[in-house]
Amino acid sequence: MALVKILTPGKIREPWLGMAIAEYCKRLHGRLEVEIVIAKHSGQLTLLASREKRVLALDPTGELLDSPAFSERIWSELEAGGARLSLIIGGPDGLPDAIRKSAPLISLSPLTFTHQMTRLILLEQLYRAVEIRRGSQYHKI
Amino acid sequence: MALVKILTPGKIREPWLGMAIAEYCKRLHGRLEVEIVIAKHSGQLTLLASREKRVLALDPTGELLDSPAFSERIWSELEAGGARLSLIIGGPDGLPDAIRKSAPLISLSPLTFTHQMTRLILLEQLYRAVEIRRGSQYHKI
Repeated sequence: MALVKILTPGKIREPWLGMAIAEYCKRLHGRLEVEIVIAKHSGQLTLLASREKRVLALDPTGELLDSPAFSERIWSELEAGGARLSLIIGGPDGLPDAIRKSAPLISLSPLTFTHQMTRLILLEQLYRAVEIRRGSQYHKI
Repeated sequence: MALVKILTPGKIREPWLGMAIAEYCKRLHGRLEVEIVIAKHSGQLTLLASREKRVLALDPTGELLDSPAFSERIWSELEAGGARLSLIIGGPDGLPDAIRKSAPLISLSPLTFTHQMTRLILLEQLYRAVEIRRGSQYHKI
């Protein structure tokens, strides 16, 4: 099964966010494997990212996609990367410069979200990407 | 105190979303009053929206704003509307046509979010709008 790793610093503090993330991981179970890797600080995030073969990083200056384009991008990256892809979310101060300069950048919105909420929005879009590919009714528009 | 009403159909089913929304309403307490008005169906949503003096509706085709521009827009609408503003979120099928044609439209992202998650994202942006105006460290970038 295809594996998407989400590399991000910082543990989840809000109980509701932990519940929400667990819920989407459960929904994705059997369709797309998602592994959340927590970095201790941005230096470790940069190191972890450098070890990954195929990465996309989230940044407000990145390419803005709608959900069908996001879905297409995720599946084409997974196909090109041998069913492996790593998505990088920066910490409260954004992406480390080394990642911003080397990785392709995509954006979820021109709005600034907390990095913790970004994790939830990203998971919901991954679930949506699966459902768009399946042609289910989850993504109607 | 300024009052923002959020008009939207559909009750919250997910417990984590209820917790998250309660958390942001608590954080906004004393700074911006937020009232969430649940419509039973899109006909009722259209009726409720038509009774409001100053409205902004959320739609994927609407104007994309970054967080400082969103903050500025909210405060200028509140100023022009005598400290009252209503934000309309459509249901699972989006905005009713009558609202889409009559209200100014803004967009949180080109991505499609569930209408329930839209409520959470909107509340976090309202909280961010308050913090941007206060000049706090919550919005760093």
